[in-house]
Amino acid sequence: MSKELGMTHKKSDLSEWYVEVVRKADLAEYSPVEGCIIIKPYGYAIWERIYEWLNERIKETGHKNVYFPLLIPERLLKKEAEHFEGFTPEVAWVTHGGKKKLNERLAIRPTSETIMYTTFSKWIRSYKDLPLKVNQWANIVRWETKMTKPFLRGREFLWQEGHTAHRTNEDADEEVEKMLNVYKELAEDVLAIPVLAGKKTDSEKFAGALYTMSIEGLMPDGKALQMGTSHNLGQHFSKVFDIKFSDEDEKKKHVWQTSWGVSTRLIGAVVMVHGDDKGLVLPPKVAPIQVVIVPIPSNERTVEEAQKLADALHPLRVEIDERERTPGFKFNDWELRGVPVRIELGEREIESGELTIFRRDTRERAKLLSKDAKEGIERILDEIQSNLFDRARKFLESRMDVAKSVDELVEKINEGKIVRAAVCPEHESKVKELCGATPRIISGRGKCIFCGKDCNEVWFAKTY
Amino acid sequence: MSKELGMTHKKSDLSEWYVEVVRKADLAEYSPVEGCIIIKPYGYAIWERIYEWLNERIKETGHKNVYFPLLIPERLLKKEAEHFEGFTPEVAWVTHGGKKKLNERLAIRPTSETIMYTTFSKWIRSYKDLPLKVNQWANIVRWETKMTKPFLRGREFLWQEGHTAHRTNEDADEEVEKMLNVYKELAEDVLAIPVLAGKKTDSEKFAGALYTMSIEGLMPDGKALQMGTSHNLGQHFSKVFDIKFSDEDEKKKHVWQTSWGVSTRLIGAVVMVHGDDKGLVLPPKVAPIQVVIVPIPSNERTVEEAQKLADALHPLRVEIDERERTPGFKFNDWELRGVPVRIELGEREIESGELTIFRRDTRERAKLLSKDAKEGIERILDEIQSNLFDRARKFLESRMDVAKSVDELVEKINEGKIVRAAVCPEHESKVKELCGATPRIISGRGKCIFCGKDCNEVWFAKTY
Repeated sequence: MSKELGMTHKKSDLSEWYVEVVRKADLAEYSPVEGCIIIKPYGYAIWERIYEWLNERIKETGHKNVYFPLLIPERLLKKEAEHFEGFTPEVAWVTHGGKKKLNERLAIRPTSETIMYTTFSKWIRSYKDLPLKVNQWANIVRWETKMTKPFLRGREFLWQEGHTAHRTNEDADEEVEKMLNVYKELAEDVLAIPVLAGKKTDSEKFAGALYTMSIEGLMPDGKALQMGTSHNLGQHFSKVFDIKFSDEDEKKKHVWQTSWGVSTRLIGAVVMVHGDDKGLVLPPKVAPIQVVIVPIPSNERTVEEAQKLADALHPLRVEIDERERTPGFKFNDWELRGVPVRIELGEREIESGELTIFRRDTRERAKLLSKDAKEGIERILDEIQSNLFDRARKFLESRMDVAKSVDELVEKINEGKIVRAAVCPEHESKVKELCGATPRIISGRGKCIFCGKDCNEVWFAKTY
Repeated sequence: MSKELGMTHKKSDLSEWYVEVVRKADLAEYSPVEGCIIIKPYGYAIWERIYEWLNERIKETGHKNVYFPLLIPERLLKKEAEHFEGFTPEVAWVTHGGKKKLNERLAIRPTSETIMYTTFSKWIRSYKDLPLKVNQWANIVRWETKMTKPFLRGREFLWQEGHTAHRTNEDADEEVEKMLNVYKELAEDVLAIPVLAGKKTDSEKFAGALYTMSIEGLMPDGKALQMGTSHNLGQHFSKVFDIKFSDEDEKKKHVWQTSWGVSTRLIGAVVMVHGDDKGLVLPPKVAPIQVVIVPIPSNERTVEEAQKLADALHPLRVEIDERERTPGFKFNDWELRGVPVRIELGEREIESGELTIFRRDTRERAKLLSKDAKEGIERILDEIQSNLFDRARKFLESRMDVAKSVDELVEKINEGKIVRAAVCPEHESKVKELCGATPRIISGRGKCIFCGKDCNEVWFAKTY
């Protein structure tokens, strides 16, 4: 295998390694538009697995899909002041349609609260119309000025955004927590990434929210990655967009709202958390190809047997590699692409009825009787899924720590840890100054390590 | 049922009827952005059925999904001159990112040839990389200046666009035809809309294509609707985007390309073709709800039986209407929404073990033994699907005609027909002047009814 094709960076050089693996595993590449990527078939197929799982859960929890316009008139975006301030620095503006200058600038949606809620006010009349629960799968544009990185931060990304309206704040609280739990399940059970879940500090909440909850994963360099958010918007938007209902007591009341989303950023998290020096390592539940069969050598007999084996493995996602390449090239290529299980199928395996199985996570070979292939491979895929999660959980646990003083906090953050410390809101920015860490989620209560005041105890980490 | 809720326009007032049914059946509504609609849950669910069917066929035919950026730098859009001229009058331009003016204007994609093909030139090196076959599901913006109409013509719509690159023109021809046939199957077997399929005249081809094929449906007012297109792009784009491969003979050659797409316009076609004075009539294969069960009256016993029946009908898409409304209101509401089958479930039906079935297409009631519900309903749904297609086919056939002279052509077009006539390219515009019809697809060869020259015989109709 030529140097060009294999990985040249070790995972310990995380940043270079990441960009290299995204490119060489054919997940995505840079586009002619600065900050926007092209999601290639192999990367998009991971998103399709996420879509399928999450779309089903979103429907099971009673939400319906809709589609709202991409473009938002500036006057709507401006209505909720905090929201506008939060998003306006990174809005891409449409000013011309054809040759004509528009009367009003249109924002490409940086999120859809304002365009949706203008309409919600027409959809909701009575308490019988509540809860209103919709979701959309859409593209989002935010004109990032920070350094972009494929999947993790870009000027355009794909996401889903759920938007709901409720009769009471308690109902909204419940929705926020329910969807946060769906995201936690997605991260842990599907992507095999353990997360911390909880409420954000006011400084980190969504622009316009009452409060924000999030799930946070820990990347190998000790930086936290916000992987999904669920916001209780309170009545902030319903008041400015005048979304009212007649309650059972016949009084007019403003609805309580939530919004929540996850994006293609999740693909970046999977790459970061599970990959190794050889390249990508994909959890079986989101792997576009779960099993690759390499006939050795690739001839009529071995390919025919490979096809039989693939049929027997249905409905697992199986690919047969018939390329005119050496087995060594193929092995490296599939390792780079993170396919969970490789089956090496030669004349000897056919004769003996015993398959050679290679596990991508442990990089170990094992034998398996052909006749037990289906259940054997299914068991191995389950083991890989659990093993990846356990590995990541152990890593996360090894990096979780607590600090009782400012020095301790700075020291542990610099060791690449996510650290619990009581810091009052006024001193949060001091932490950032000292070590670059920001509050991730609230873990409890304590006395500020700066001033001793009663305050929240918070998980601090550097972030993406 | 109050006047406000039922239909007020007859289908014979097609234009008003259409807008009313789209709104009252909760498919879509106008948005705060002129020319852009909001696709509501019931309308979006139809799109999801189309997506599921077509996405599977696109994959079965060997294409992989990808995602390319929404924004296209002006310099790329300009590269293929004919393409740029065709699309530039209706491009929405992004000029600012946050507060900063961009160095170069970015077009919101009116279609993705130019952004994709810039990249194809990097993906293709050898004949072994061919064919390259990708597809994307995406939103599209075209700043229409014509009157917009929900689903049929709007400034933003959803679609899929397939893009392929081939070694020879023959391979490209084959791909164009294959995907046109997939679209024909979608229209006829899924949407129950018979179509004419064939090649467009040069005057109507896609900007930048060698030739365009399309499927055309006929709407109740005798106007044709272009429902899907499949283009052979020849080497027009590969030459300007420099997409070359080394062939087996080691010569560098430009690839031959195709692109093809269908959009949310198909939802509009379904509404137009099958609806009646009572509202929407949905073909079972795309109906979000295939069967509605109305318990009469809605009480513990009837709802329980309805639930048992719904379970027995699994995996059909069934809804039980437990709303506190009169049966009359519910019947009208579900007819308006075009649900193919309604089951009226009262005490009498429970006692007798015989269900009352209402078919939306014929508006007739029939009896069905409860114990045969599953197969009985499945059979009725199949009958409805066929019946809708047959009805639409008969209508299309009754409106297909031929003209041997200019007068005859004008007369028949004015009768709301789609008319075959030999007209040479120079005289096409004359037809439009005389009666508003444009060439839809080529049907054969003949002698021009204006000048007697040998030329194509073409289907002419007014269009949407």
